[in-house]
Amino acid sequence: MSKDKAPRRPRAETPKGFRDYFGADVTERKAMLDAIAEVYHRYGFDPLETSAVETVEALGKFLPDVDRPNEGVFGWKDEEGDWLALRYDLTAPLARVAAQFRNDLPSPYRRYAMGPVWRNEKPGPGRFRQFYQCDADTVGAPTVAADAEMCALLSDALEHVGIERGDYIVRVNNRKVLNGVMEVAGVLDPFDPERFSDERGIVMRAIDKIDRLGDAGVRALLGEGRRDESGDFTKGAGLSGEQADVVMGFMAAKRDSGAATTARLRELVGASAIGLEGVQELEIISELLAAQGYGPDRIVIDPSVVRGLGYYTGPVFEAELTFEILDEKGRKRSFGSVAGGGRYDDLVKRFTGQSVPATGVSIGVDRLLAALRAKGRSGAAAPGPVVVTVMDRDRMADYMGIVGELRAAGIRAEVYFGNPKNFGNQLKYADKRASPVAIIQGADEAARGVVQVKDLVLGAKIAAAASVEEWKAQPAQTEVARADLVAAVRRILEG
Amino acid sequence: MSKDKAPRRPRAETPKGFRDYFGADVTERKAMLDAIAEVYHRYGFDPLETSAVETVEALGKFLPDVDRPNEGVFGWKDEEGDWLALRYDLTAPLARVAAQFRNDLPSPYRRYAMGPVWRNEKPGPGRFRQFYQCDADTVGAPTVAADAEMCALLSDALEHVGIERGDYIVRVNNRKVLNGVMEVAGVLDPFDPERFSDERGIVMRAIDKIDRLGDAGVRALLGEGRRDESGDFTKGAGLSGEQADVVMGFMAAKRDSGAATTARLRELVGASAIGLEGVQELEIISELLAAQGYGPDRIVIDPSVVRGLGYYTGPVFEAELTFEILDEKGRKRSFGSVAGGGRYDDLVKRFTGQSVPATGVSIGVDRLLAALRAKGRSGAAAPGPVVVTVMDRDRMADYMGIVGELRAAGIRAEVYFGNPKNFGNQLKYADKRASPVAIIQGADEAARGVVQVKDLVLGAKIAAAASVEEWKAQPAQTEVARADLVAAVRRILEG
Repeated sequence: MSKDKAPRRPRAETPKGFRDYFGADVTERKAMLDAIAEVYHRYGFDPLETSAVETVEALGKFLPDVDRPNEGVFGWKDEEGDWLALRYDLTAPLARVAAQFRNDLPSPYRRYAMGPVWRNEKPGPGRFRQFYQCDADTVGAPTVAADAEMCALLSDALEHVGIERGDYIVRVNNRKVLNGVMEVAGVLDPFDPERFSDERGIVMRAIDKIDRLGDAGVRALLGEGRRDESGDFTKGAGLSGEQADVVMGFMAAKRDSGAATTARLRELVGASAIGLEGVQELEIISELLAAQGYGPDRIVIDPSVVRGLGYYTGPVFEAELTFEILDEKGRKRSFGSVAGGGRYDDLVKRFTGQSVPATGVSIGVDRLLAALRAKGRSGAAAPGPVVVTVMDRDRMADYMGIVGELRAAGIRAEVYFGNPKNFGNQLKYADKRASPVAIIQGADEAARGVVQVKDLVLGAKIAAAASVEEWKAQPAQTEVARADLVAAVRRILEG
Repeated sequence: MSKDKAPRRPRAETPKGFRDYFGADVTERKAMLDAIAEVYHRYGFDPLETSAVETVEALGKFLPDVDRPNEGVFGWKDEEGDWLALRYDLTAPLARVAAQFRNDLPSPYRRYAMGPVWRNEKPGPGRFRQFYQCDADTVGAPTVAADAEMCALLSDALEHVGIERGDYIVRVNNRKVLNGVMEVAGVLDPFDPERFSDERGIVMRAIDKIDRLGDAGVRALLGEGRRDESGDFTKGAGLSGEQADVVMGFMAAKRDSGAATTARLRELVGASAIGLEGVQELEIISELLAAQGYGPDRIVIDPSVVRGLGYYTGPVFEAELTFEILDEKGRKRSFGSVAGGGRYDDLVKRFTGQSVPATGVSIGVDRLLAALRAKGRSGAAAPGPVVVTVMDRDRMADYMGIVGELRAAGIRAEVYFGNPKNFGNQLKYADKRASPVAIIQGADEAARGVVQVKDLVLGAKIAAAASVEEWKAQPAQTEVARADLVAAVRRILEG
């Protein structure tokens, strides 16, 4: 606003990258969060709700050597000069809570959290700057059994929200196995962990791009480097063909059974201690899940899961929907990942100096909702309220009495509160609200102690198909005694 | 952070004025929001969830002539130079939505919204910078029947969350009546609405302070002014004794019946057109509510409701809990207001230039939860999960099998995932989690195909009261066949 601003009206717009959710979009997401919370709760997790605002310091989002938060978060300076920011995930606040309340919380601390998070990133189609996360984490559990549990939890949660067995798969990998592979490939020295960190960075970024670049592209990046279509050259990790074979072999190590897969991984990590530890963890996870009846139709060991391997420190999980949907261009494609997680053992250390083992999962509710809609399991128009029309403005008390009776009977209902002069507008309103029933009572009906009950669903069907004679017969509208109103409405609603 | 900063750990703290909610605090609030949403839904309101972030322009929170948002909001400048802010209530976003989607939304638009709002205000004891609001509003409804409905809605919602009839009262007043009173008192000229606006401002602020200053204090402010204990003088509105009598009479106009109250108001507003309109609105509200059976045990006309009269343009509602609680010093006091609302007809006009009649209510869920706790209706410790202890680290698969069975039977359960070495720690953990049952299976029990089921609630009772002999008999711990485990646990849980 400049000093000489013209008096103008504010724009009625959400900020770029934000959106509003109406009606069924709200209730369906809520129903999904409730269903997931039920599973989290049954697994012994307790709810935690932190505030949306954290100090940038606690979030760990200061830019290096710069007195401003990272661009990825929405941040501001408060009156005391401290930088605050909106949380960008639910894990950073958990780490802060686990440190702040470490003397009071049970250990292990099992918590679930669901709520919006904010990212100050370029919005795009379907990419918003505020979205929901829905997490369960166990803090202070060193055992790999806690990781196995996360896989079972993902499986149960997906089935509980309506994804059928066979329509999803939970895949498990382990960062330690990759570390072992890097050791064998000569880019990790267990006695000098800092050495080769540049090369490892290139390897990590390369395998993260396997979906986009394919085997050949990744292999080029593992070796001398890769020139893309535009001619730009990306420097590679400088691995020899044999070294690259080990890394590529890791991602292709999946076999028909979990036992065969871990046997193959055992070959690949050779004598690497960290690698063998990772393989053994995968074996234990397999065994624990098998003991609970989670077979390979639900959860598999799959070293091709590479997303998140850079972030996590041990087992990594990803839940993927396996059915195909049609994309916006009508092409078939598989739906892909809807949840993930893994072990991260250094999260609380930032605050306390003490390493605290933790593992967790996060379910992408918005993607999962989209999946259920693609399967036709969700997104059906919810029925609107019964609309009591206003034929006679002076008898509002009668209409309020009718609506009160319907509500007392548990029926969703309302009186039309717009200008009642044009009756057509009242029916248009009922249509826009997807009302199943309209109630009509003019002076004549009131005098005779009756009401008209109009079945709007049936009415719409007749209007679409009926002849003029049928239309005139108006079978969708019936007159009932005022005392029978609730019963008559209920009959229509119950079909 | 200065340039020469020492490497130090971040503080694990919420920002000042923010807090975390754990366990039952989260689930009880959620249950209350769900219960209120059920009533809002039954009344025909549709959910709306706007984003937490709005443009400062849309919020209308720019300081006059200043290029920064009002201090009451948390705001920041985005990369394109626009000011964004966290919403400070749910009404401003509704106004933006009603304007932005005016061609698509049904009219009237009945929406409910629940979620956190943020205030950049000085935090205090029990006053936080993030808290929940829970609103229902009807936009585009000129009829006073929509206001009457809001009162019925408040009454139904309070009863639905567990406030018994008799423990609350919904009080109704009307800004228009006050305007009429001001006209009679000579501080409102219907033909020159801007005239006397300073005096009216003083009158508005004075009556808003009646709880704190009492009749004499308000009367002083209506007249020449008031000197407080510190000696500071506040200039008054300059009304004569007779003029002040009219204003004071307005606040004291409540009589035994609604009819007597409105008759008294009719006397007070004399010939003022706006005042008579307001009185008539109150009469219609009374009549409509009576027709629906909402008597004076639930909803009353009460001109002493002055909170919000400055903000609203017509009927104003307030729901107050009438029972007494003990405050932190052990003194009895009445609980006070938990919800309020009213008619505000100019909200959307800012955006579109068109006046849109609207009315709504907001329920203070945090206060309402505190009230239910004070009544002992809430805040009971929720039972924790069954804890399966780990006697033998190598048999984790067995323990996971047990917990899997319990969960499949719908029983909340978990395996202890901390270091199992110290068994006492496992029982301490179960205690901290408020677990009702612990399951114990050592190698011996496993070999015999049995498990120990420990009733921790009974155990705690015995520990508190038992002799050594009784303690040794350990009746709280029983051995059952492994196959009978689920049934045995269920027996204990069902008491």
